Amino acid sequence: MNDVNAKLETRNSKPREARNSKLRVAIFGGSGYGGAELLRILLQHPDAEIALVTANEHAGKGVGEVHKNLYGLTDLTFSNAPEELDTLKDLDCVFLALPHGQAMEIAPQLPSHLKVIDLSGDFRLRNKDVFVEHYGREHTAMHTQSEFIYGLTETNREAIKHARFIANPGCFATATLLGLAPLAANDLITGRVVVDAKTGSSGSGAKPAANTHHPQRSNSFYAYKPFTHQHVPEIEQELRNIGAWVSELVFMTHSLPVSRGIFASIYVETKKEIADGDISPLFADFYSDSFFVRLVKGSPDINWVKTTNFCDVGFAVRGRQLVVFSALDNLVKGAAGQAVQNMNLMFGLCEKTGLMLLGTNP
Amino acid sequence: MNDVNAKLETRNSKPREARNSKLRVAIFGGSGYGGAELLRILLQHPDAEIALVTANEHAGKGVGEVHKNLYGLTDLTFSNAPEELDTLKDLDCVFLALPHGQAMEIAPQLPSHLKVIDLSGDFRLRNKDVFVEHYGREHTAMHTQSEFIYGLTETNREAIKHARFIANPGCFATATLLGLAPLAANDLITGRVVVDAKTGSSGSGAKPAANTHHPQRSNSFYAYKPFTHQHVPEIEQELRNIGAWVSELVFMTHSLPVSRGIFASIYVETKKEIADGDISPLFADFYSDSFFVRLVKGSPDINWVKTTNFCDVGFAVRGRQLVVFSALDNLVKGAAGQAVQNMNLMFGLCEKTGLMLLGTNP
Amino acid sequence: MNDVNAKLETRNSKPREARNSKLRVAIFGGSGYGGAELLRILLQHPDAEIALVTANEHAGKGVGEVHKNLYGLTDLTFSNAPEELDTLKDLDCVFLALPHGQAMEIAPQLPSHLKVIDLSGDFRLRNKDVFVEHYGREHTAMHTQSEFIYGLTETNREAIKHARFIANPGCFATATLLGLAPLAANDLITGRVVVDAKTGSSGSGAKPAANTHHPQRSNSFYAYKPFTHQHVPEIEQELRNIGAWVSELVFMTHSLPVSRGIFASIYVETKKEIADGDISPLFADFYSDSFFVRLVKGSPDINWVKTTNFCDVGFAVRGRQLVVFSALDNLVKGAAGQAVQNMNLMFGLCEKTGLMLLGTNP
Amino acid sequence: MNDVNAKLETRNSKPREARNSKLRVAIFGGSGYGGAELLRILLQHPDAEIALVTANEHAGKGVGEVHKNLYGLTDLTFSNAPEELDTLKDLDCVFLALPHGQAMEIAPQLPSHLKVIDLSGDFRLRNKDVFVEHYGREHTAMHTQSEFIYGLTETNREAIKHARFIANPGCFATATLLGLAPLAANDLITGRVVVDAKTGSSGSGAKPAANTHHPQRSNSFYAYKPFTHQHVPEIEQELRNIGAWVSELVFMTHSLPVSRGIFASIYVETKKEIADGDISPLFADFYSDSFFVRLVKGSPDINWVKTTNFCDVGFAVRGRQLVVFSALDNLVKGAAGQAVQNMNLMFGLCEKTGLMLLGTNP
Repeated sequence: MNDVNAKLETRNSKPREARNSKLRVAIFGGSGYGGAELLRILLQHPDAEIALVTANEHAGKGVGEVHKNLYGLTDLTFSNAPEELDTLKDLDCVFLALPHGQAMEIAPQLPSHLKVIDLSGDFRLRNKDVFVEHYGREHTAMHTQSEFIYGLTETNREAIKHARFIANPGCFATATLLGLAPLAANDLITGRVVVDAKTGSSGSGAKPAANTHHPQRSNSFYAYKPFTHQHVPEIEQELRNIGAWVSELVFMTHSLPVSRGIFASIYVETKKEIADGDISPLFADFYSDSFFVRLVKGSPDINWVKTTNFCDVGFAVRGRQLVVFSALDNLVKGAAGQAVQNMNLMFGLCEKTGLMLLGTNP
Repeated sequence: MNDVNAKLETRNSKPREARNSKLRVAIFGGSGYGGAELLRILLQHPDAEIALVTANEHAGKGVGEVHKNLYGLTDLTFSNAPEELDTLKDLDCVFLALPHGQAMEIAPQLPSHLKVIDLSGDFRLRNKDVFVEHYGREHTAMHTQSEFIYGLTETNREAIKHARFIANPGCFATATLLGLAPLAANDLITGRVVVDAKTGSSGSGAKPAANTHHPQRSNSFYAYKPFTHQHVPEIEQELRNIGAWVSELVFMTHSLPVSRGIFASIYVETKKEIADGDISPLFADFYSDSFFVRLVKGSPDINWVKTTNFCDVGFAVRGRQLVVFSALDNLVKGAAGQAVQNMNLMFGLCEKTGLMLLGTNP
Repeated sequence: MNDVNAKLETRNSKPREARNSKLRVAIFGGSGYGGAELLRILLQHPDAEIALVTANEHAGKGVGEVHKNLYGLTDLTFSNAPEELDTLKDLDCVFLALPHGQAMEIAPQLPSHLKVIDLSGDFRLRNKDVFVEHYGREHTAMHTQSEFIYGLTETNREAIKHARFIANPGCFATATLLGLAPLAANDLITGRVVVDAKTGSSGSGAKPAANTHHPQRSNSFYAYKPFTHQHVPEIEQELRNIGAWVSELVFMTHSLPVSRGIFASIYVETKKEIADGDISPLFADFYSDSFFVRLVKGSPDINWVKTTNFCDVGFAVRGRQLVVFSALDNLVKGAAGQAVQNMNLMFGLCEKTGLMLLGTNP
Repeated sequence: MNDVNAKLETRNSKPREARNSKLRVAIFGGSGYGGAELLRILLQHPDAEIALVTANEHAGKGVGEVHKNLYGLTDLTFSNAPEELDTLKDLDCVFLALPHGQAMEIAPQLPSHLKVIDLSGDFRLRNKDVFVEHYGREHTAMHTQSEFIYGLTETNREAIKHARFIANPGCFATATLLGLAPLAANDLITGRVVVDAKTGSSGSGAKPAANTHHPQRSNSFYAYKPFTHQHVPEIEQELRNIGAWVSELVFMTHSLPVSRGIFASIYVETKKEIADGDISPLFADFYSDSFFVRLVKGSPDINWVKTTNFCDVGFAVRGRQLVVFSALDNLVKGAAGQAVQNMNLMFGLCEKTGLMLLGTNP
């Protein structure tokens, strides 16, 4: 095997120890876009098989009838959510890809041998009041929340390996944190940080709505939820976890007229002037073990990461002004891809397994 | 005044005879895209003023709050549809831009001095059974239907001038008929005619739906309603009106991932071979008085007609095979623009009045 | 005439004084997108006529052959740039819509009775060294530059009225300055200002290039020219003109996958906390005479200003953190529209004349 | 292994017989979009390795610098085309992804042990005069052409298995032929066939041009090359190969404002009336061994096949009027994917190997 292909060969490099069969996984909420991407990825995963996928409104329908990209590729059908959760005893892992508020009902009831990865915002926040403020509902399972590990793979890898419960990060949070983490860890930030974040329309989910109506959206660009996006508290919480975060975060979300992609422009003032040539090694060092963070020259582009699990990061510097650019696919590294990356770690697999989703040009 | 600007100077060229004041018009159903375009056009119309615009779900709101393109440009507010239609006595003209099925309730009740232009499909078809078949409901006002003139301006100009009721053509029908009319009028067609028609997403209206969900629509192209689109019978009816139409019409509609525009590729077999150089004069002659039909070399492009009242027509020929290409903006020449063009004729104005909506590059 | 239409009736409201005929204007460089928009606007302008439009590579061709949106609407043909500039003696006004570097060759030679509006960057900067740094060439006409007025209509209205030479602002500069001007004038800003600006692809001009190649651009978003965009110095220069600008400007340009539109998110720290309810009157007051700046609730959207001369401005505030959003059409308020707005003022016309370009929904 | 995953498990199902190492392949012309897709697919192919990839203008650069989707995924660098073609002796297979006209220079010189797959139009046509007419150049290697097999996998599978030279079909030809082949093979067609075909912008290649300039293309739809597209003769040639083709082909190409995708609407008159329920089995039977042709209900959509090797086919029928819809990704099943599918057959591999490229939703 030559160098060229070695990068892509992950299947046999880290076999699951002492295991003869594949992981048996369930997806709760398989009809949305997060579910669609979990299906795409797990159907190709060499060490996992999908034992159950639920979608109440499509129960009985073939997966390929609903997600027509998968037509002809699977005999899986959608089930109703199981009434008796203890019927899940022959499963290894459950992905919860449900609307906000549903995971907190289900997670506490799941059999204790199951590992659980929640893609919603239900279990990301450690503070109950902050949750109420941002999600507009009471939290009914804070005791379970305390067992959750925040699943930003690149900053929490060791904890994830030993976790039973993972709160998978939000898409904006992933893009922002991967841009800021090396700076926070090295205590380089002073003053407020401005994050100008933009998302494609799939971030609004699979259900049609006024803001994703094609005639409107296709020639539009606008800001929404100024200062108050629900990903703000998880970003601040995790930054405090990574370093001595005391700065003010000014976070602004915008809507892009593309289907997929998050792009964050992150404006930082550094404590002292840092030469252009010193930033790059700092990022390279922080992400030396992180295959899915690619450091690029200049600006990344959502075009190069779409459908992949990569987060591309670039930067520019002038005196103490540093701007970091971060680009990822909101449904992959921002959701389903990172969820599978976490599953891999939780079950002793190589992080990359099943995630070699190559992007396309164009 | 020089030649250059003369083309654009219509305001004073044909003043309304014997009239001191502006036409007072009402728009029933002002919140949809057809209504939005009627508002845009009529707000700039030198000889008309909008006296009433209804939209039950927005009653009391400013027009510029709903159609934000018009923000700051008008003090008009949306009203509820009037319960007593005889309150409309100080109006001159009513545009009905309502969902299919509503105009047939309203039109028969309108005071007899009012002229009425209906943008829906309610009054286009003369045959009651054909209506039921294509619109899936009974027709409750066929007696009124018999007073309606089909408002394809370029083929029915004289009748429109004297009409009280206009059934404004469908967008696909307009594109198709303007491409076929010169051939039908000259009895040049033999065998079946294939029309491969494509529409932008605004053709589906202002209400979000699965087929106009941006993540889906923005990279898609597909066919829908094969053979059975409700514009088929009005096309056939009008072709029989124009010439001795006996051919079979194979009509197929497709969805384009753009906001605005209709493009029809019309495949015709001619009775005898016609030289390329003979087609052009035939169209030019037929449309010699029709400012809004522009004959172009080769193919038109929806990009050049968007937001305008033009229908651009081009063609190519090989032996007896003739293909005609027709491009227009579904909301202007395919709806609101043609409606105002008809209003102009009905009230003795120059056809072009208020319709000099120049397109843009790009 | 009722209130409703009064807003749109500008033609006769402020007739050119003591003048029987139309302004005779020339466009140098009529084949680009700036030229295309000048043509669209001036062809409809009630008090101007286009006497000359140049485009060396298209000399002899009809304007409607090159800008197919104008096909059938004008008999104008493109000319070569005149060799003898004194043949321009029967003109009133010249628009220079040429690539950077050409206006500085032409402007000094123009007959002194002519008023001149330059859409390029040649005459915007007062400092020769700053020009060299940002445009990469020597300036050969700084003596003429000193006669130029910076044509941001809303901040320089009085000077523009008496100017012979106008340096029309850049598109990014217009969006940024209209967002910042009320704050700078009221001396409210402290610390650095971050401007995250995004542009549609027409900002790159009419000539195909790698960054506007459709397969690439249509699903992309990326940053370019970090910190160094050539509009930065004109923004800083004008801010110093408006108020006591001493802040640092962090300016970042990004590429949007739409054809038209600029959106600027402007992050400001205010000297003291300002209540949400105090910002709005401050902007309203500053722009009380400025029809083309529309103050909107929340965020503007490029969708609502496309093809119009409006700049829509909104904002959000949290403590001392203020973000201003500004949206305009790069080719209209960001170029040709503002140029004509300036022409109107220079010749004693109402500022709005010929600029009632209504946008569309969708 | 359960049924679900079995569909996706091809790697080990048909191992290359009597072979210890991977196929060594070369790509001539790796910088275009066809080359980009060959790289994406072959880098993941379990039984092939890329030994050489040429691109004269990028020689020495990393593949991931040019195709940034592959950044970090390969150490391959672009080479100059080898001057001495006999240096290719340790290769097994060569893909020629060069501009039209270059393959005919190279193919005849390649060492005889090499298998060759040409993605250009150079070797598709058996008649020299027809080639000259459609490609506008003399053919200099007709002796080699006679050794070429037309690589439409689904109709020529057996011949491909034993071929040394493959002329890979054009993208429009693949979509059209896969729609028509079952009908032609069953001799069901009478009269002319109308094919209304539409392509995304990547079909024009990686080099910027006027027709792919984003500001223009993004809101456009137009026809081009009426009747005369160079894919017409290969379609007619292959239809004669499949059945008793005597009909007239009316073929029209159009440009879609999307990056990827071909959609063909194929209008056929059948010799006798065929019930809707009889068409489906006819297609199912014809494609019973063809995994990559998926029969769908109603219309396919380019959205569901983008980035995949699938061609989705649907149809509608009314009396003797039959319309077949065919959708594929022009760069995959229409180019690189089909090329690898052919390589697999030529080397005794399972046809699906390395081609399980799952599409995405959205």
